[in-house]
Amino acid sequence: MKLCDIGNSYAKLYLDQNVVRLKIEELRRFKNEKVFFINVNERAKELLAGFSRWIDLAPYVVLDTKYKGLGIDRKVACLGVENGVVVDAGSAVTVDVMIDGVHQGGFIYPGKEVFKNAIKMVSPLLDQPLIVPEGEELPLDTKGAIGYGYFRPIVSLIESYKMPVVVTGGDGIEFARLLSDAIYDEFLIFRSMKNIVQRNNLC
Amino acid sequence: MKLCDIGNSYAKLYLDQNVVRLKIEELRRFKNEKVFFINVNERAKELLAGFSRWIDLAPYVVLDTKYKGLGIDRKVACLGVENGVVVDAGSAVTVDVMIDGVHQGGFIYPGKEVFKNAIKMVSPLLDQPLIVPEGEELPLDTKGAIGYGYFRPIVSLIESYKMPVVVTGGDGIEFARLLSDAIYDEFLIFRSMKNIVQRNNLC
Repeated sequence: MKLCDIGNSYAKLYLDQNVVRLKIEELRRFKNEKVFFINVNERAKELLAGFSRWIDLAPYVVLDTKYKGLGIDRKVACLGVENGVVVDAGSAVTVDVMIDGVHQGGFIYPGKEVFKNAIKMVSPLLDQPLIVPEGEELPLDTKGAIGYGYFRPIVSLIESYKMPVVVTGGDGIEFARLLSDAIYDEFLIFRSMKNIVQRNNLC
Repeated sequence: MKLCDIGNSYAKLYLDQNVVRLKIEELRRFKNEKVFFINVNERAKELLAGFSRWIDLAPYVVLDTKYKGLGIDRKVACLGVENGVVVDAGSAVTVDVMIDGVHQGGFIYPGKEVFKNAIKMVSPLLDQPLIVPEGEELPLDTKGAIGYGYFRPIVSLIESYKMPVVVTGGDGIEFARLLSDAIYDEFLIFRSMKNIVQRNNLC
């Protein structure tokens, strides 16, 4: 089964247990394959309209939530977690809370690259790599102050929920390492997509 | 006594109990006055070099800290707080911790404008005003998710320090409102500058 998760920056294609990361334009190479996909990227819509064998899973994604306008990728990730906090760390970091299969709400935080580009706009002195803080000690230099200022606030908030945490996405390993009671699940979205395909007999 | 705090985006001039916010170039109007100043803005240095009556307070600012490269504005703000968390919410938000007059370290978080510009780079759907979350309930729409994602993480981290908080800076009132055990002190930096002038008999 071939699955594709199209994000704002790039697409992730799941091919026989392997995941490849592609630019949106590179998806043309797979236009004649049968692929189940989800897409949050407005620019990709036109391209996908020409892929006659691609099947949009959006109509089959049903999440119990009061949230208006929840991205399809967040919905699919949440469907993979019955109870817990779902963190997807990509170009944005999305955080959602699930209790007994019901979505409780969630929030959006900048991804690492976006944060790094933002903070250097304040002053050229702040143009530094974002390093992961080693412990909870307060930073004693600019580089440490920026890395801590990116990671520790969101980690503190997620930990305040006092729930198990499932982390996915390209930058997820760093978050999983900082969060107590967290696991990193690279395939959360694809496993959840596979379930949707099977439950709806689309294959 | 005239005092001036020159930041990355603009200058704040303290004139007989009143504070005026000026563009860096507008400081020329005061070049013949006697003004005590602090400056973190590289671009302003050349201009200030031509203001013969302006006195840089930097050599008189002595803070007990192991932090390397702490901005002069942060040092001056910290000198005004014996025990507590010092939050200065401007184009960046700086957070520093003081215990018995000794600086323990601190971190840097993006200011509201910088964060807003960053998050909209991810997707045009995220180009929304940053609204202050009303309570701790999880957001149920995109606008709420972005405002919560800006304010709640840093508030959660600051509250985890379990110390009194003094907030200053242009966007400080919003932070002070969200933080329990916080006061907003508009004049923290100027009062501290005044103390430095008086203790060193510069007036």
